[in-house]
Amino acid sequence: MEKVISLKTILLDMDGVLWRGSDPILNVRELFNRIRELGFQVFCVTNNSTSSVDVYLEKLNGFGVRLKNFQVITSAEAAAVYLVEQFPLKGFLFVVGEEGLKGTLKKQGFYISETADMEDVLAVVAGLDRALTYQKINQAAKLISRGALFLGTNPDKTIPTPDGNAPGAGAVISSIEAASGQKAIIIGKPERHMYALALSRAGCTPEETIMLGDRLETDILGAQRMGMHTGLVLTGISNRQAGESWDPEPDIIAEDAFEILEVLARK
Amino acid sequence: MEKVISLKTILLDMDGVLWRGSDPILNVRELFNRIRELGFQVFCVTNNSTSSVDVYLEKLNGFGVRLKNFQVITSAEAAAVYLVEQFPLKGFLFVVGEEGLKGTLKKQGFYISETADMEDVLAVVAGLDRALTYQKINQAAKLISRGALFLGTNPDKTIPTPDGNAPGAGAVISSIEAASGQKAIIIGKPERHMYALALSRAGCTPEETIMLGDRLETDILGAQRMGMHTGLVLTGISNRQAGESWDPEPDIIAEDAFEILEVLARK
Repeated sequence: MEKVISLKTILLDMDGVLWRGSDPILNVRELFNRIRELGFQVFCVTNNSTSSVDVYLEKLNGFGVRLKNFQVITSAEAAAVYLVEQFPLKGFLFVVGEEGLKGTLKKQGFYISETADMEDVLAVVAGLDRALTYQKINQAAKLISRGALFLGTNPDKTIPTPDGNAPGAGAVISSIEAASGQKAIIIGKPERHMYALALSRAGCTPEETIMLGDRLETDILGAQRMGMHTGLVLTGISNRQAGESWDPEPDIIAEDAFEILEVLARK
Repeated sequence: MEKVISLKTILLDMDGVLWRGSDPILNVRELFNRIRELGFQVFCVTNNSTSSVDVYLEKLNGFGVRLKNFQVITSAEAAAVYLVEQFPLKGFLFVVGEEGLKGTLKKQGFYISETADMEDVLAVVAGLDRALTYQKINQAAKLISRGALFLGTNPDKTIPTPDGNAPGAGAVISSIEAASGQKAIIIGKPERHMYALALSRAGCTPEETIMLGDRLETDILGAQRMGMHTGLVLTGISNRQAGESWDPEPDIIAEDAFEILEVLARK
């Protein structure tokens, strides 16, 4: 971590780092104040595609934290940005996903196709959809076979719920992959698109950036592939033993995000 | 094919060999007459789990062919036999599948659980389900995580329909595999269970048996793994070029099932 002295930007996973569901894990407001004191830029990056950026801004606001729109990146938002790059003239998309995803794509100027006659559909975007049906899988696979681009918001196979794990975006995507015979382009962590979007908004190199997250196989793996610094917090999914046997080990393993900030402050 | 002189039993795939949907590919009645003349036992084996054995017997009857109940093996039937072996005392199953599958399992004495409280569920059986929902995937994955056995009727990722390919059992199974983190035990071709059931009913060894089918990666592959003789017909999915470059090449490649019988008659 010698290079840590040049650190300018913190990327922050939210669920498992700031809160679990609606319960805060730590004093969220104090955490962001401490980040500001230390002079870091901050971006929140989540694989969740079912809530819009506005919903996250409100949630953060509820904890006394005011962020700008561009500081929150969901996999839905990153998918929308990716699609704008691919299709600057916009057009129709077919979405297997929830309202947060549809709204985010519409906000970027895309139309959401719901009809059977879909010759003009540019891409299929698949994410967590708790109203998934056989018919949606069928329509999505047909469009992909006919040449539509196939995007998956995030690879998480499960989502934690009060009743235990439930199927995640990865379960939705894998059924469409099977039916279409094609692999999705995955937008969320550990793939590169969300990290790249954050870096471009931050105007930073990977070496100037540290990713703080609770999940080795998404947050940490993806950041390591990008060449970023990494900090694993033990407030979510992965435990210390898993962190220490991860190869390469995260640069910092700490009980929570405050502890990571203190390590960075001492550098 | 020297050993072909000891051939006693023909296993016959139906869709793509005898008919496509409701249209016969050849004179079905004449084909079975010729099989009888040549002195072979015959068993029909299909990966389709959505229709019961009775439905297939009726369909064959409609073409003038009378078979006995035990001569038709669907992946639903083979799944039911497998479950009886595992759970001779029977009990509750959770089914992600259609009425043909549920009826077949009930006929063997199992109960189908539809309720949320499912502590007693022995196994989850997943197949093609054109009424698939997110909730079914969720319930299935929860039961599997809790220790229920996980069976998939067949691995076909798509099914042909008049409107092109639609999602098959494989697409249903892969979403449950993703959500549960566990691989299904697959009953259908190319796995061994259906072939083994046919051999046991025939009282034959693999060397005394030939599998006739139209699909290399299910019919032919599975039979080759079992050590059976194989005949590829070109009336369905796979073409001659694919058959000739398959390794090892099927013992016979022929335009249709009649042509294969003539090859066998000359031995």
